[in-house]
Amino acid sequence: MRVLISTLPFADINRRPLELLEMVGAEVVINPLGRKFKESDLLSIIPEFDVLIAGTEPITELVLNRASRLKLISRVGIGLDSVNLLAARRRGIEVCYTPDAPSAAVAELSIGLMIDLLRSIQVSNYRIHKGEWCRYFGRRLSEVVIGIIGLGRIGSRVIHHLKGFDCERILVNDIVSSITLPDHPTCTIERVSKHKIFCEADIISVHVPLTAATRNMIAKEEFMCMKTGTLLVNTARGGIVNEQDLFEALQSGHLAGAAIDVFEEEPYTGNLTSLDQCLLTAHMGSMSVDCRTRMEIEATQEAVRFILGEALQSIVPTEEYDNQKMVS
Amino acid sequence: MRVLISTLPFADINRRPLELLEMVGAEVVINPLGRKFKESDLLSIIPEFDVLIAGTEPITELVLNRASRLKLISRVGIGLDSVNLLAARRRGIEVCYTPDAPSAAVAELSIGLMIDLLRSIQVSNYRIHKGEWCRYFGRRLSEVVIGIIGLGRIGSRVIHHLKGFDCERILVNDIVSSITLPDHPTCTIERVSKHKIFCEADIISVHVPLTAATRNMIAKEEFMCMKTGTLLVNTARGGIVNEQDLFEALQSGHLAGAAIDVFEEEPYTGNLTSLDQCLLTAHMGSMSVDCRTRMEIEATQEAVRFILGEALQSIVPTEEYDNQKMVS
Repeated sequence: MRVLISTLPFADINRRPLELLEMVGAEVVINPLGRKFKESDLLSIIPEFDVLIAGTEPITELVLNRASRLKLISRVGIGLDSVNLLAARRRGIEVCYTPDAPSAAVAELSIGLMIDLLRSIQVSNYRIHKGEWCRYFGRRLSEVVIGIIGLGRIGSRVIHHLKGFDCERILVNDIVSSITLPDHPTCTIERVSKHKIFCEADIISVHVPLTAATRNMIAKEEFMCMKTGTLLVNTARGGIVNEQDLFEALQSGHLAGAAIDVFEEEPYTGNLTSLDQCLLTAHMGSMSVDCRTRMEIEATQEAVRFILGEALQSIVPTEEYDNQKMVS
Repeated sequence: MRVLISTLPFADINRRPLELLEMVGAEVVINPLGRKFKESDLLSIIPEFDVLIAGTEPITELVLNRASRLKLISRVGIGLDSVNLLAARRRGIEVCYTPDAPSAAVAELSIGLMIDLLRSIQVSNYRIHKGEWCRYFGRRLSEVVIGIIGLGRIGSRVIHHLKGFDCERILVNDIVSSITLPDHPTCTIERVSKHKIFCEADIISVHVPLTAATRNMIAKEEFMCMKTGTLLVNTARGGIVNEQDLFEALQSGHLAGAAIDVFEEEPYTGNLTSLDQCLLTAHMGSMSVDCRTRMEIEATQEAVRFILGEALQSIVPTEEYDNQKMVS
């Protein structure tokens, strides 16, 4: 079987995923472009492959139309916004993913970005490197109202990390109203509307998938609701926060800062790069050695199971297909 | 009474400290230079004042020789390396400080800097702002061996913050061997020698005062003991880590990164500013709104007590004088 690995980096730190594929005699091609595939790249390469071990490149209906041999898409990660699930289903292509593996690394990065913004670490760093000594006042996590949108695997872990910071007020919102709120040693976590989070939180961290319901979830209108000086962290997906509206909210000074790890188009080269108060990282949420290795191994194990004719263990659940139905 | 406030900023966010001084009729002068006083600045201004509410400017024997009216030095902060305590005592000048107030803000900044270094946040940010998209592998706090040098107010709080991060190995060293090790939910904290921390920790955070015993505590020899790729955080005091040796350890690639908030001379303009992998902040450890306000109010309250002839409540303890005796 021919296996295309489109995600980058792959097996850089731990060769185990490649060994697993070698053991079952797969013919493996790793993304030869050294950058994220565009749709056009996939269109030309996809016809030759039976299995795709995928990153976040656009696996559109057009791509799937050309994927005449493809039988399995195994996503290295949790987000499925890049895969046209319904088109895959129509063509009998199975899709699996690694929903648990990235959570720990994404949640911990989010905490780092929150403290960065609250203390203006990146701005002070930038200025000292330019020869300017600027001491900024900041706030501690216990001094601010923290808003967490999305209380799934990652949002819950963010709250777990906050346990050692003596927080006083955490507001959470999740689309699933039955979700159990975690215990917290120093504050009662309040379930509220997204609107209340936009209006009352000093720092907002986003942990929802990109779906029809969350695209542009934070745009001009939502920024207008926020207090002057609000801080925003997005380690979830590009497209959830409207980038142009964020740029304007930051440039006008209405927002004091933002930390953005994910973008509508990656690699990102947009106008947020012109703002010092916008901390930008290169989609590194899941990039801890342990989590990335686990993601690669889990996604590869699914490919191996498929090649051996065994049952898959992490098939994307029906809800994800339903989410995409809402779009069309 | 005439009160000189040399620390900057002062009463910027909360005017309460100035109100307290007005209420007792003090004549107040706030540092008119807009930058940290040098010894020469203090030499010319100090003779006119009875009370000094001080930052970290050098209150040397020379300065004290000119301070003929001075009766009280009230430090906004905990470090006493900038004050010649023995010379002050010889002249009958009382010294008090605010040992508890800064701890929370310094500890929280330290956690932010640790995550920054572990995930290369500042390097990725710098590169994206320059138009380069670089995804760096990082490690989570639970993947690394954490070394904490100094288990006083701040070091203990750092460990408290780490409770929500499922750490697996924390090594600590403190000069006081009777100090109780804190409980930790996921790992046994090991009391070890500084040498063992240098040899075995992946990330080292320094939380000791600057004294004769800690000056140059981390210099060439200690860097040589460290594993390739070690990360270093110093939010304690400049002078504890030898800056030139740190520069060489970083430039050679032996250390993977460092986050430095405190410098031998501030404002800092040295050669660490030429290294992207050196995260630099402008002595902002205590600069959260709540902690800074508390420090300013507590230091001012001591000045007010002195002016009213009341007993001081935060007189610097004898050990601090003994520490300085070791120097001479």
